[in-house]
Amino acid sequence: MNASANPPVNTGESSVCAPVAGTLADVDTPCAVVDVATMRRNIARLADRADRLAVTLRPHVKTTKSLDVAAFLHPGAPGPVTVSTLAEAEAFADGGYTDITYAVGIEPYKLPRVIALSRRGVTLRLLLDSYEQASFVAEASREAGIPLPAQIEIDCDGHRGGLKPDAPGLVEIGRILHDARCLDGVLTHAGESYFARTAEEQRLAAKNERDTAVAAAERLRGAGLPVNVVSVGSTPTAHAAEDLTGVTELRAGNYVFFDLVMAGLGVCRVEDIALSVVVTVIGHRPEHGWIMTDGGWMAMSRDRGTAAQVQDQGYGLVTDLAGNLLPGLVMTAASQEHGTLTARDGAVLPELPVGTRLRILPNHACATAAQHRGYHVIDGTRLLGGPGPATEAFWERVSGW
Amino acid sequence: MNASANPPVNTGESSVCAPVAGTLADVDTPCAVVDVATMRRNIARLADRADRLAVTLRPHVKTTKSLDVAAFLHPGAPGPVTVSTLAEAEAFADGGYTDITYAVGIEPYKLPRVIALSRRGVTLRLLLDSYEQASFVAEASREAGIPLPAQIEIDCDGHRGGLKPDAPGLVEIGRILHDARCLDGVLTHAGESYFARTAEEQRLAAKNERDTAVAAAERLRGAGLPVNVVSVGSTPTAHAAEDLTGVTELRAGNYVFFDLVMAGLGVCRVEDIALSVVVTVIGHRPEHGWIMTDGGWMAMSRDRGTAAQVQDQGYGLVTDLAGNLLPGLVMTAASQEHGTLTARDGAVLPELPVGTRLRILPNHACATAAQHRGYHVIDGTRLLGGPGPATEAFWERVSGW
Repeated sequence: MNASANPPVNTGESSVCAPVAGTLADVDTPCAVVDVATMRRNIARLADRADRLAVTLRPHVKTTKSLDVAAFLHPGAPGPVTVSTLAEAEAFADGGYTDITYAVGIEPYKLPRVIALSRRGVTLRLLLDSYEQASFVAEASREAGIPLPAQIEIDCDGHRGGLKPDAPGLVEIGRILHDARCLDGVLTHAGESYFARTAEEQRLAAKNERDTAVAAAERLRGAGLPVNVVSVGSTPTAHAAEDLTGVTELRAGNYVFFDLVMAGLGVCRVEDIALSVVVTVIGHRPEHGWIMTDGGWMAMSRDRGTAAQVQDQGYGLVTDLAGNLLPGLVMTAASQEHGTLTARDGAVLPELPVGTRLRILPNHACATAAQHRGYHVIDGTRLLGGPGPATEAFWERVSGW
Repeated sequence: MNASANPPVNTGESSVCAPVAGTLADVDTPCAVVDVATMRRNIARLADRADRLAVTLRPHVKTTKSLDVAAFLHPGAPGPVTVSTLAEAEAFADGGYTDITYAVGIEPYKLPRVIALSRRGVTLRLLLDSYEQASFVAEASREAGIPLPAQIEIDCDGHRGGLKPDAPGLVEIGRILHDARCLDGVLTHAGESYFARTAEEQRLAAKNERDTAVAAAERLRGAGLPVNVVSVGSTPTAHAAEDLTGVTELRAGNYVFFDLVMAGLGVCRVEDIALSVVVTVIGHRPEHGWIMTDGGWMAMSRDRGTAAQVQDQGYGLVTDLAGNLLPGLVMTAASQEHGTLTARDGAVLPELPVGTRLRILPNHACATAAQHRGYHVIDGTRLLGGPGPATEAFWERVSGW
């Protein structure tokens, strides 16, 4: 096991400058591995897009949950991030991040932790979509003597929470917040873009996401309410948007690692997937055409996100330890600590003795990463000749709530 | 948050004797909760069966992964357990457990940790089903000067790994192990019993599991090889077996908590499910018939095990904080940190304001429990009148590999 000390936050490259002895042939399996060369490319791609679109990029750290990864998102100094849990908010506050959007609807039990973060100097932007939430946020702000900035969640595609921009209560909610000095802006998320199967559908989803958020902001402004933040984003729409006029910031999280669902949508290529799980062959059932590994659903998660896509990728595609795809080999079944690999498309099942190490590319990076305490880090450009890629560091994840 | 010190191992009741102030209305959500009254009943039920069947019960701790739970399985002193990872084996060894079966096929990279456990005095029983595995286990035993006990995995139903009892290589594998003083026994697992939909099918699966293991043991004995352990088990077959003549031990893990998959098979009732996830209402979409909560797939897992059953339970059934089912309410969709509850079977969607706390009964206890660092513990018999069940302790889980 290689377990480097936590590298300093926001030094960008530092984490991978002090190689830890060993390679992927030495780590305990199953384990998660991040190829930092691929990750850097993914990060640069969306950063460039955000620059061209003239919006602030506020990465969602729910996928990677790592201060070490965040140092690549915001090299030099902490910047704006989005979180999915208060545990992430607290960990990122500990790491020096002071501009955090908590993008899950707020409820009253969470306010003490929210207020504690605010008292530490963190601008923690809350999300809500109802009169009752706006009321208790306004009341808590007055009681605490600290305005808690809140964004109104806007529904652009019927995916989850939020108000339609023409919803009767929108202006009233805005006014409650404004009167308590809490109105921060509007936020929407095109969750249905994960099911937009063509580039054109994704462009339309991005346009709709932008149009809906801007319409809501304009309606509030029309009622005399100032709207600072107009926040949109999802990994598919962030990569498809052509015009974000009126939008102030873009959110996305999955893009740092990508996965087979995103490759199935055409948002990335399979070779852009930066996260994989290292597994070891533990047996064979030639009569069934099975190779058994020690990577089951505990290591991959139960996510079968590609099941609904044109190409179902089972629990994942298989590569050798260096990251080269083994054509036609798929992880088709999973028990808790067993994975089953089978050949498809007429491929011949390769001979892989017990002890052979492989890597599995996941359906859904957010779900697979969550099964692990952290990531062994490799740099795709630093392959050893024999036993596999060198391990450069171990990056811990934030977990829990 | 209530976080009691770890209670002493194997004092059975001690963990719940020193109440921690608070109730389920105080804990941060989402979180896992175990009702110890229900758990005790489940544990007693299978312990009684094992007594009647005259076999040793070797609980599989992969579901609960908790030394605190294990103290209820083996009150008074540590006893035999089954594990799914070396991390569990090491944690249980730390807790005083010295008789441990590692029920996943062994591969060479794991031998150093296996040998280290053996040197600590743990009898760590390995599993294998091939000539190559038997050879490296025998060689490692000779090199280390410690015989590593190994069981031959027998396939009783084509579910996963193992050799058929009439497989050509069985006796040769037994001989390699015996010659190195490693032959411990045979082990089988009726994994297909999870799809046996009637009590009669489950009885037949249990009979087949027993017959197959005994046949393999008899074949090895017929070749002059001593077989000490004849190990069978799965939660469905453990509750269906009527005769285990020739079997020495029974394994099962899920039964401690049970879940909706087991209830769907008729192995337990819904009211026997000891594990649930406490969630809080964060919003409403009346136009869709949705109640939104803060418990998504990160808290429940992506497991949809009931999807293939007669009654698909979505991501879980919903109870109030005291554990009373809310009839017709189902968690039908999940994002990472959002759950969607909807009404079915003509039920009216109840009025549950933002901040209402609920509990979700999971499809698959092993997968749901794995999403959490540990369990808040309640005792169903100690309900408070108002805010919900009292929290008695916090039990940590073993994680990772």
